[in-house]
Amino acid sequence: MALIVQKYGGTSVGNTERIKNVARRVAEFCKRGDQVVVVVSAMSGVTDGLIKLAREITDLPSEREMDMLLATGEQQTIALTAIALHAAGVPAVSLTGAQAGIVTDGVHTKAKIQNITPAAVHRMLDAGNVVIVAGFQGQTEAGQITTLGRGGSDLTAIALAAALKADLCQIYTDVDGVYTADPRIVPTAKKLSEIAYDEMLELAGSGAKVMQLRSVEFAKKFKVVFEVRSSLNENPGTIVKEETTSMEGVVVRGISLDKNQAKVTLFGVPDQPGRAARIFRALGDAAINVDMIVQNVSHAGGKPVTDLSFTADKSDLPKARRVIEELQKELGIREVQADENIGKLSIVGVGMRSHSGVAAKMFDVLAREGVNIEMISTSEIKISVVIDLAKGESAMRALHEAFIG
Amino acid sequence: MALIVQKYGGTSVGNTERIKNVARRVAEFCKRGDQVVVVVSAMSGVTDGLIKLAREITDLPSEREMDMLLATGEQQTIALTAIALHAAGVPAVSLTGAQAGIVTDGVHTKAKIQNITPAAVHRMLDAGNVVIVAGFQGQTEAGQITTLGRGGSDLTAIALAAALKADLCQIYTDVDGVYTADPRIVPTAKKLSEIAYDEMLELAGSGAKVMQLRSVEFAKKFKVVFEVRSSLNENPGTIVKEETTSMEGVVVRGISLDKNQAKVTLFGVPDQPGRAARIFRALGDAAINVDMIVQNVSHAGGKPVTDLSFTADKSDLPKARRVIEELQKELGIREVQADENIGKLSIVGVGMRSHSGVAAKMFDVLAREGVNIEMISTSEIKISVVIDLAKGESAMRALHEAFIG
Repeated sequence: MALIVQKYGGTSVGNTERIKNVARRVAEFCKRGDQVVVVVSAMSGVTDGLIKLAREITDLPSEREMDMLLATGEQQTIALTAIALHAAGVPAVSLTGAQAGIVTDGVHTKAKIQNITPAAVHRMLDAGNVVIVAGFQGQTEAGQITTLGRGGSDLTAIALAAALKADLCQIYTDVDGVYTADPRIVPTAKKLSEIAYDEMLELAGSGAKVMQLRSVEFAKKFKVVFEVRSSLNENPGTIVKEETTSMEGVVVRGISLDKNQAKVTLFGVPDQPGRAARIFRALGDAAINVDMIVQNVSHAGGKPVTDLSFTADKSDLPKARRVIEELQKELGIREVQADENIGKLSIVGVGMRSHSGVAAKMFDVLAREGVNIEMISTSEIKISVVIDLAKGESAMRALHEAFIG
Repeated sequence: MALIVQKYGGTSVGNTERIKNVARRVAEFCKRGDQVVVVVSAMSGVTDGLIKLAREITDLPSEREMDMLLATGEQQTIALTAIALHAAGVPAVSLTGAQAGIVTDGVHTKAKIQNITPAAVHRMLDAGNVVIVAGFQGQTEAGQITTLGRGGSDLTAIALAAALKADLCQIYTDVDGVYTADPRIVPTAKKLSEIAYDEMLELAGSGAKVMQLRSVEFAKKFKVVFEVRSSLNENPGTIVKEETTSMEGVVVRGISLDKNQAKVTLFGVPDQPGRAARIFRALGDAAINVDMIVQNVSHAGGKPVTDLSFTADKSDLPKARRVIEELQKELGIREVQADENIGKLSIVGVGMRSHSGVAAKMFDVLAREGVNIEMISTSEIKISVVIDLAKGESAMRALHEAFIG
């Protein structure tokens, strides 16, 4: 008998037929004698519909009231899921985030979980129930309803698994697991049976859309082993866990391609202390999330000047240009160029720590493909390059062939 | 400066335009310096949509989970109303029933309010906010979400007005107030400026569809004076309050016609102790709400037998027939007849206590109209007759002409 936390996303509970399917799946685990805690998202479309209603009233609704409004989406799903489990003959009871003891800080629309007091969950499990908890939400110590922001339901599931000391945490979604690359781009991509937290983090951070960073970070911090798997079939998924010695045998675990970045280059920045700090503080103040930063010193005539490049989300590009243009005169920047036609290609693997020559091999493969590298950035377990967007997919296939096969 | 509780029903908040109208109205009161507590229902259609989802899963959803599901409707409205008030420049904060301190018993889908601890409401009012409370819902001492059943939002408003010792309680609806008769049937019907609780109760109990009985009963018990008025215009409505001496000057306050009753007659019931008790206990056990009961002793030959008639909701008629037919042989009932083509016509007024001859005048008017009276039932302040449904509306107009003018 195991204690299992299962999370089902918005498409997995998108209508009452799918909710009944979830109930059937949960019932199977109960038959085996497992105790099951189910975390659900709002039915797909519900949250967007509520946001639309609020926007009909004003462009800038209060964040506290948006939390009050959006929390109803998950509350509807938990009730319907409990009803479906009853119909399948399984005792079940639903709990809002607040009722499940999920306590957050007071930062509405992106609250952080502060602690979980799962007494009610334990009590209801012990009474023989499946316990269904609303994902994405909690309440403050003072009883205000909060939501956790994007990917919040994954976070609820992983945090509950940690608080309940669950034997297993399953994140059900509409893909079979984590792949070595996006199968729509690389037909030979393979599903991974396991992946280390750090690899998952680097992949998510470099464009692979499986899970939000914060849920994986939370799982890593509290050592919650979880499985990403499909709610549409019975295939085993991908286990995400701490790095093991055997994992180092694989040099490259996965390859990702981020098409949503733009590159900004500042030519002829006087090479004086504090210039870069000034620039990136201004970008940070404008809430622009800068990803890669590359700088090379170059001497043009007598005065030392440098070229500075960075990447950011395409959607932030107009704002970024405005910020830089305001600084251009003051800082004596010669010229500013922006390029939206780039792709960021990354290879990720904990095996890189113990294998040398990985970067050389990557650059070699790209050179053979005739791909020019515009920027390079590396971490201990990742190498990212910025290249021409038009060559992104073919370059990705070539790297997959060379490193994974 | 007054403390006002205002309740807006589902049609008054039926879309975001109407919610903005509610916000405008509330803002006017705030400008005058009043403190306002707003109680809202779910947007019209929302509750039915949720019930439909549950029914797609099963015909018999758990009542606890239905409360969890339906409570989201009002929670959406409070958030949207707060957002609309912010957009109108008015500080406002929303509270679920639970957050507003509305504590109920644990009878899901028809919980009773046990007490209200309005500390949070007071605190937020004192901080200068309009406080928007979800109608129709509360929570048990143990933190379970409950709903109050039909008319629950009116009840929330009246109970809050009592707990807050509000100066005024306004029930906004889609009619202008309480009329002497249904204006769709009696074109000369007049809006009442005031009505006594007991008159309102008798009218509601005899078919006038203004408010649920329990809200009026609650208001009477806790002496909450309230006004029923329209959310679509600025007309003053009808004040519902304790009986005053001046009210006795009016003999008939209002006339109602209930077309949704059916009559069942049991012919030749042996006139022995316990027979009637047996019959009505069986009907009660089947959850059939019996309204009027009339019995006359008649001697047919040697054995004393009686004819017994009662009325009940038309929708309960098939169930009532089944119950009676099961008893027919055992109790020796000669024959059972049911009649769906009846109307129950009632005249109501506290003035009847001090005026004689009211019944005689009523029967006289009906006789002149050629209306045969099938059953008669009286209370201190009401006379009801059962007549042919086809003559109901014309008889109502004749009584209105004779008693009210």
